[in-house]
Amino acid sequence: MNKDVLVLGAGRSSRFLLKQLADFCEKTGRILTVCDASKQELDKHTADLSLERKIFNASDAVELEQIIDGKEIVVSLLPPFMHPTIAALCLKNKAHFASASYVGEAMRALDFEARSAGLVFLNELGLDPGIDHLSAMKAMDEIREGGGEITSFESYCGGLVSEAYCAGNPWKYKFSWNPRNVVLAGQGGNSVYRQNHQIRSIPWHRLFAEANSLSIPNLGEFDAYANRDSLSYSSLYRLDEVSTLLRGTLRRENYCKNWQVLVALGFTDAQSPLPDDVCSVNDLCCALTGKETDQLLSAWLLENNWIRPEQTIWFDYLNLENKQELGFKPNNAAEVLEAVLLDKWKLMPGDCDEVVMYHRIGFVKDGRKQLLHSVLRVTGEDEMHTAMAKTVGLPLALGVELVLSGNCPERGVVIPVSKFWYNGILPRLEQMGIRFAEHTEFCD
Amino acid sequence: MNKDVLVLGAGRSSRFLLKQLADFCEKTGRILTVCDASKQELDKHTADLSLERKIFNASDAVELEQIIDGKEIVVSLLPPFMHPTIAALCLKNKAHFASASYVGEAMRALDFEARSAGLVFLNELGLDPGIDHLSAMKAMDEIREGGGEITSFESYCGGLVSEAYCAGNPWKYKFSWNPRNVVLAGQGGNSVYRQNHQIRSIPWHRLFAEANSLSIPNLGEFDAYANRDSLSYSSLYRLDEVSTLLRGTLRRENYCKNWQVLVALGFTDAQSPLPDDVCSVNDLCCALTGKETDQLLSAWLLENNWIRPEQTIWFDYLNLENKQELGFKPNNAAEVLEAVLLDKWKLMPGDCDEVVMYHRIGFVKDGRKQLLHSVLRVTGEDEMHTAMAKTVGLPLALGVELVLSGNCPERGVVIPVSKFWYNGILPRLEQMGIRFAEHTEFCD
Repeated sequence: MNKDVLVLGAGRSSRFLLKQLADFCEKTGRILTVCDASKQELDKHTADLSLERKIFNASDAVELEQIIDGKEIVVSLLPPFMHPTIAALCLKNKAHFASASYVGEAMRALDFEARSAGLVFLNELGLDPGIDHLSAMKAMDEIREGGGEITSFESYCGGLVSEAYCAGNPWKYKFSWNPRNVVLAGQGGNSVYRQNHQIRSIPWHRLFAEANSLSIPNLGEFDAYANRDSLSYSSLYRLDEVSTLLRGTLRRENYCKNWQVLVALGFTDAQSPLPDDVCSVNDLCCALTGKETDQLLSAWLLENNWIRPEQTIWFDYLNLENKQELGFKPNNAAEVLEAVLLDKWKLMPGDCDEVVMYHRIGFVKDGRKQLLHSVLRVTGEDEMHTAMAKTVGLPLALGVELVLSGNCPERGVVIPVSKFWYNGILPRLEQMGIRFAEHTEFCD
Repeated sequence: MNKDVLVLGAGRSSRFLLKQLADFCEKTGRILTVCDASKQELDKHTADLSLERKIFNASDAVELEQIIDGKEIVVSLLPPFMHPTIAALCLKNKAHFASASYVGEAMRALDFEARSAGLVFLNELGLDPGIDHLSAMKAMDEIREGGGEITSFESYCGGLVSEAYCAGNPWKYKFSWNPRNVVLAGQGGNSVYRQNHQIRSIPWHRLFAEANSLSIPNLGEFDAYANRDSLSYSSLYRLDEVSTLLRGTLRRENYCKNWQVLVALGFTDAQSPLPDDVCSVNDLCCALTGKETDQLLSAWLLENNWIRPEQTIWFDYLNLENKQELGFKPNNAAEVLEAVLLDKWKLMPGDCDEVVMYHRIGFVKDGRKQLLHSVLRVTGEDEMHTAMAKTVGLPLALGVELVLSGNCPERGVVIPVSKFWYNGILPRLEQMGIRFAEHTEFCD
């Protein structure tokens, strides 16, 4: 019987996952194989671990199938668009599949076949989605089992950096995950949610203008903007009747109104080719705004009522008036902005990132209106051992262990929202320092 | 030798073209064949003309090739995306090709083969593009031949409706051409132009915010927004050195700032699926704005500083608070808005549309700065015999006559910017009442 474990991809969020799975495999007499396209990445993230290393080309289906053959489970850290292909090969080779990515149409379409083959295709088990599913469902199940009725649900998450490492950076933000996704945030389509019984649908080019201030108990003030289609979780979470259903993304205070300026002016656009004459960041800045070559962007923004005086430092910090020639031929504005930010927002040696998650759940119990606040903060150890890698990797590793335990009652394409998952994973995460602080307040 | 003429498509802009070509074919002993998918359209627009009628399915390549076989020229009024396929069949069957549509990459790729086969693939010969090319090049050639140096070039065009037919409609707009294109205006990518030596690139979601007021001699005030990539005409028009190069689209005064509100709120979005609960225009309006069910949109807009009091009538007119169930399942917001506008902005019996074109060309001659103003206004005869159909169809018909004259010195994929075309077409358009009024003023 197959019992070995394959991990595809050894990028920056793989470290904690690999350590956990290496220990597990050693204890249970399994072989752990890790594949990556880059020998350098592979060596960097696995040097101290006991496992098999393989360089591979993920776009070669034959090679991929050879590697999958004989494994009990395949864990993918590759880009989400590759998951349906990998999962289909798992189906053919009778292997389970696990990832931290959102379930799309193509993955969902494999449900019946995976179920029929007795396989578990486990998805959305990282941080967000992942820990949010586990912790929110646990909290809501407890409320419901105690006789409470849920009346509103908000869940927020942000991959941030501890403010102490942001001296001189008014955005108080650095990249602890894919920079491109930060630049393109929201552009997948309108963000949809329900607030006070009203459906909202926000175009991406206004998403950051519609962000709200959010006070998180003991952590202070944040900005929050709506994350994708919150309503798609309505039936999964059994929240069809609640007045507010909102999943949001966190940024530090005032980030959103300043980011909105960049969005509105077109700096985050990835669709439109740039005019040939755009050779520097300043050229792009002039083309998008109409400011004069030697004018500061912040001065132009002030003059044209885009910002208030206290916002100038946000733009001066970015130095979008840089006239140095770009070292590459950008395809669009988003690539230029990403290059600017990669330079400014890179985690430096010793920088510690910070993951924040916050559920705010309204309910009525014994005739009284109450609000449950559930807050998680995880801080990275350094720029390599990030809170992001930990909170994405550990739940997934523990989920893999559960699948391999043989006790998993679910089959097919699975999102971890049931007791089996949260009871199996959350207590172990707590032991590893990933622990929610909860308190309930009465609102009447 | 093949000498017959084929016209594909007999929609609402075909009437003048067909009449002109029918007369021409009769005089020159050619057979004119007209194909359309709809017998009704075909009969409606060709009843009084002597020509062959054929019902056809344009997506059937075999049928298409049979129809093209034996023709000397094929004129396409079908949607632009079909033109490369049709032109490729023309290549195979040694037929010339003509359309009023923009030359895209796929059409341009046929240039060498068409040229080698001695064929003319004539494009961009309608109103805009079309009459603008002819008239602008004629004006600029005359300035240059007289020793002048062009210093700026602006060209504006609008398919409008005469204001007299817009009582109670503050937008002063109705559809004289494809309604969908009006709703999606600008969404093909950033609009790019040069103004005072500066390149500008405007994201579609800000295009109407960047519109300008424009005074057209003898016609009054209009709004103008930048049309696509003006710079793509820079070398064709030999304008690489001018300070301003702008092609714009005209609307009546104040249209753009109000349309911008609809764009910014997401009413013109064609990308994002609608939430399931959107069943009426009011549902969409609430989802996009957050207004309450029974609140007037204009009241919400005022309250949230989107508009000033004098703008309320623009939105009240649209009745976006309509709670009646939509008679169809819309895929996106743009489809809902289009349905609303189709009802409000339909040309009614007796309505006369109006085409306006305006070139403003700066030049220096004998050391003096001058400005040439060249203005065209064409008014429709009724809702069927529109100025739009006339100004799109007649230049194309006359272009076809020139190709068939045997005197055409150009081969391959052709845009009509040379003397051959404007000398051959403009004087005949003048006889038909399509005539520019020109005057020059000194600016120093």
